[in-house]
Amino acid sequence: MNTFGNTFRLTTFGESHGPAIGGIIDGCPAGRVIDQDFILVQLRRRREGDTPSEATTTRRESDHIEWLSGLMDGVTLGTPIAFVVRNSDCRSNDYDALRDCFRPGHADYTYQQKYGIRDHRGGGRASGRETVARVVAGAVAQQLLMEHNISIHATNQDRDITCTVLGVPAGIGEPVFNRLNARLAFAMMSIPSAASFAMGDWDIWRLPSNEFADAWQQGGTADTLTSTNHCGGIQGGISNGMPIVFHVGFHPPLTNPEGMICRLGDGSLKTVSPHGRHDHDHGTRLPVIVESMTALTLADFIPFSHKSPAQ
Amino acid sequence: MNTFGNTFRLTTFGESHGPAIGGIIDGCPAGRVIDQDFILVQLRRRREGDTPSEATTTRRESDHIEWLSGLMDGVTLGTPIAFVVRNSDCRSNDYDALRDCFRPGHADYTYQQKYGIRDHRGGGRASGRETVARVVAGAVAQQLLMEHNISIHATNQDRDITCTVLGVPAGIGEPVFNRLNARLAFAMMSIPSAASFAMGDWDIWRLPSNEFADAWQQGGTADTLTSTNHCGGIQGGISNGMPIVFHVGFHPPLTNPEGMICRLGDGSLKTVSPHGRHDHDHGTRLPVIVESMTALTLADFIPFSHKSPAQ
Amino acid sequence: MNTFGNTFRLTTFGESHGPAIGGIIDGCPAGRVIDQDFILVQLRRRREGDTPSEATTTRRESDHIEWLSGLMDGVTLGTPIAFVVRNSDCRSNDYDALRDCFRPGHADYTYQQKYGIRDHRGGGRASGRETVARVVAGAVAQQLLMEHNISIHATNQDRDITCTVLGVPAGIGEPVFNRLNARLAFAMMSIPSAASFAMGDWDIWRLPSNEFADAWQQGGTADTLTSTNHCGGIQGGISNGMPIVFHVGFHPPLTNPEGMICRLGDGSLKTVSPHGRHDHDHGTRLPVIVESMTALTLADFIPFSHKSPAQ
Amino acid sequence: MNTFGNTFRLTTFGESHGPAIGGIIDGCPAGRVIDQDFILVQLRRRREGDTPSEATTTRRESDHIEWLSGLMDGVTLGTPIAFVVRNSDCRSNDYDALRDCFRPGHADYTYQQKYGIRDHRGGGRASGRETVARVVAGAVAQQLLMEHNISIHATNQDRDITCTVLGVPAGIGEPVFNRLNARLAFAMMSIPSAASFAMGDWDIWRLPSNEFADAWQQGGTADTLTSTNHCGGIQGGISNGMPIVFHVGFHPPLTNPEGMICRLGDGSLKTVSPHGRHDHDHGTRLPVIVESMTALTLADFIPFSHKSPAQ
Repeated sequence: MNTFGNTFRLTTFGESHGPAIGGIIDGCPAGRVIDQDFILVQLRRRREGDTPSEATTTRRESDHIEWLSGLMDGVTLGTPIAFVVRNSDCRSNDYDALRDCFRPGHADYTYQQKYGIRDHRGGGRASGRETVARVVAGAVAQQLLMEHNISIHATNQDRDITCTVLGVPAGIGEPVFNRLNARLAFAMMSIPSAASFAMGDWDIWRLPSNEFADAWQQGGTADTLTSTNHCGGIQGGISNGMPIVFHVGFHPPLTNPEGMICRLGDGSLKTVSPHGRHDHDHGTRLPVIVESMTALTLADFIPFSHKSPAQ
Repeated sequence: MNTFGNTFRLTTFGESHGPAIGGIIDGCPAGRVIDQDFILVQLRRRREGDTPSEATTTRRESDHIEWLSGLMDGVTLGTPIAFVVRNSDCRSNDYDALRDCFRPGHADYTYQQKYGIRDHRGGGRASGRETVARVVAGAVAQQLLMEHNISIHATNQDRDITCTVLGVPAGIGEPVFNRLNARLAFAMMSIPSAASFAMGDWDIWRLPSNEFADAWQQGGTADTLTSTNHCGGIQGGISNGMPIVFHVGFHPPLTNPEGMICRLGDGSLKTVSPHGRHDHDHGTRLPVIVESMTALTLADFIPFSHKSPAQ
Repeated sequence: MNTFGNTFRLTTFGESHGPAIGGIIDGCPAGRVIDQDFILVQLRRRREGDTPSEATTTRRESDHIEWLSGLMDGVTLGTPIAFVVRNSDCRSNDYDALRDCFRPGHADYTYQQKYGIRDHRGGGRASGRETVARVVAGAVAQQLLMEHNISIHATNQDRDITCTVLGVPAGIGEPVFNRLNARLAFAMMSIPSAASFAMGDWDIWRLPSNEFADAWQQGGTADTLTSTNHCGGIQGGISNGMPIVFHVGFHPPLTNPEGMICRLGDGSLKTVSPHGRHDHDHGTRLPVIVESMTALTLADFIPFSHKSPAQ
Repeated sequence: MNTFGNTFRLTTFGESHGPAIGGIIDGCPAGRVIDQDFILVQLRRRREGDTPSEATTTRRESDHIEWLSGLMDGVTLGTPIAFVVRNSDCRSNDYDALRDCFRPGHADYTYQQKYGIRDHRGGGRASGRETVARVVAGAVAQQLLMEHNISIHATNQDRDITCTVLGVPAGIGEPVFNRLNARLAFAMMSIPSAASFAMGDWDIWRLPSNEFADAWQQGGTADTLTSTNHCGGIQGGISNGMPIVFHVGFHPPLTNPEGMICRLGDGSLKTVSPHGRHDHDHGTRLPVIVESMTALTLADFIPFSHKSPAQ
């Protein structure tokens, strides 16, 4: 299903070349002023990457957000917040060549197998454009987490993304199935092109036994609790107050601008030279998506109270 | 919460040194004869590892399963299947030294921070013994998957566990959040001591772009669909019919038999020499747990029909 | 939360006098042509009642539906279907007198107590206008149910609404908590102004014991199974194939056009003469809402397959 | 599914004549001493009715509760609480005559249609004995609610059961689908033999418009808020602080001791004189079940904090 979270939940919709992308945030507490500027900054990071350049997608969207509900005079009402971002720059005809063929590595074939139909234009629902809704909602979640002095910072180097979360108090997470690390893994692996996830040190499982367990520091609390942080701040599925550190590995972009050998409906192959716009390197835009999904995950674990605007 | 799954769901209970470990399987279709022998084989693999030896835990449990509901004459009724495995071999006094101190690397500290109380005996709910319920339910799920010719096989080498699933048809998984790979990651990272997860090739994210996308084979179907399987059988969150392949990395065992420097409630440190039984190397028992969680994940995606026993 | 259903689920948003009302339908199978005319007919029944007249609300909305996702050329893709209906006719200033006071019988006071803030204009989220999203999604669900020859018909007389569902096969519903009758009660009591619910005969609980149990008919099947239908077609929470019959009672409209004694924030009272538009008699519009919620409930129990449009 | 609730949730299992009835309570906060005496009192009310006499079932169970997890020295750990009540008094052979026939009014036929198999002994999962688990968990929930001074009292007269809840603060409930009244209706209609539900005054929907809305009292708060309570303490799905009052109507007992005309598998009819034990009048035992389901519903809405036992 297209819902993420239980108490703070995001439901998203939208195909890459349909009328719009958007979502409903349900469970946002009342009485908060939404910082629109922060959301736009995060959306620009998604669109242009952390180092805006020609390196990212050539598609240009204005990414104007229309808020349809849940706000009065910019203040949250506690009711569902619906938002829409129009797909203004759709040259769908570019994709006619892809209507009846499946690109290698993409989700074209699996969507067709599952649904018996697919929107072939720009990846449809499987497009990276779907992450717009995650970033908008993630930015709202980040604002809430800042009330608790929780900050999230992700970086990208060679498609290994390290993400660090500061300020998460001890005791967040559930012990058996809904472990905080398991929920983070679920969130990260739901990002298009995510391929691997690791808590703490990337190669933690290669450490010898006597080096792994993080040693206590005398009288340590919060981020001085242990002298190392091999485990990445989570033990038994529950945060220990140290920084939460994890890695996500992404596979490289799939669309080869020089042409691809596609599969047709009858199983035969055909070389196709796509004319649509595609990501040359989606790497620089990944950090903000990782941050957004981290924020959505944490906001689902931490209770927030409704506030009267006067408070 | 202590429930895994939506339509085929397992709810577990039990502390390591409480009266019993067990669970309720809800959503198991009616009319199936449960293969008790297979369940016992899987439980023995969990207890003794795939290579039974002195290498695994010194605790010995008979692991007798008592079925409390959901079966009549050994046939499933479609109603919840409750099962209990008693904790017969409990020398709880061994753990008195741990009552007021937190071992390094373990979940002692985080449980205390979360709940304000914990069962200190043998890890309580955080013990590896909790996985008994996963293996029993996973074995039931595996029997159901065999009806669809889906088989699961996990191996362990140096705590990197490769798991391969054969026979999953194309079209299983949801596109955005409930991706099959995301659900597998969630399942695997919920296993005690799991530290990392990767789909397909372990270092997929280090492949150059032009080598990553798996090339179609002319006329290929199911497991001949593509010539390589870098992606591990899942594209856009949905299975493509190829074998599903993923890796799980586990951190080493935490209990140092030569003694540990523990943290006391007031933040001071103390060296403790534990007398309880602990895992020397839990590695050999991990494959069956990985298989069980894989089976629970897949059984939650695949619909099963009730059958009249006469069918 | 603002989501109804598990496998066929509707998430709604919108305040009465915000920019729009709408929702996301998640779980609609692929390959269906949406019958827009049927949806508009149902929306008109909601707006004007089954007997269009001056008896219903004086508010006039064009109720134009904008489909934002999930459809390509009018055919469902299996992805989330988002729709928006604009609130074009908003004279919000009419409600200024209500900003700081709570009308008797309405949800003004409880919203303020829960959230510390509320949209006072026309009831905000608590307005009957919220049911627009239910009717749109319910009409989609009804189209799916018609594939199985399931039809739903509700009538209204003196705000006791009888609803009859024909064609539900035996075996629908869960035995203990998710009983079909319990889910129907949940659905009906979620309708604004619903006050009571009864399965089968309204006063079934007053029948003497020996008259209650519906007698079998020799060789009867489906709607000839029993000679009476006191139980309303559900036994032990599961449909028996007979028509499903239930009643819903609604309380009368709350807004007194001659003025209301409202409560102010400090607990004092004040007589207010509202200038906004309000329902004189919402009774005639209730049948279509009952039908819609019945359809949403049943569509959540019955599995649908994706279809290739060619099928 | 066999789970009730979201944050405070009960999952139940057990057939009437299987080995045991029981459940898992998940979400119970840590640090509470469970009052075993209160649970036994509630179980005895379920077994014997509020006026113990020959009027209730002739089956006699000791109803000894075995606690399998979640408690240490009688104090809750915050982990799942599993409990089992054995079915000690099973004379299953009494039911041999019912193996191949479906009693009128019972769930025999619908279970067989749904699952293709059923436990015919004493109603199996559909037996009233299943309510044992509800009463145990409901009694735990009631203890938690007493911390907030919330008390629940149900009475029974002629199978119309009035239930009154005192002490629920204003602001409990969700506005659209998860209305508190809708959740109560869902809970009540899940009780075996429940037939109708009404908030506030039983015939509220027959009141004329100008008498319905409860008038504010000058300066009133909590249970002096309004001068009448026609609405039963819930407005717009959210509690207003007044007593919550609702009614549940139950159909009469189904088993006719003088014999029943049953349906056989081939659709023919046969008169059967049952030898098993059955409820003569289940009415006197209904209040405690209504109270239990009310407590489970409210405990799911109200957040509880973990407590250190020392607190």
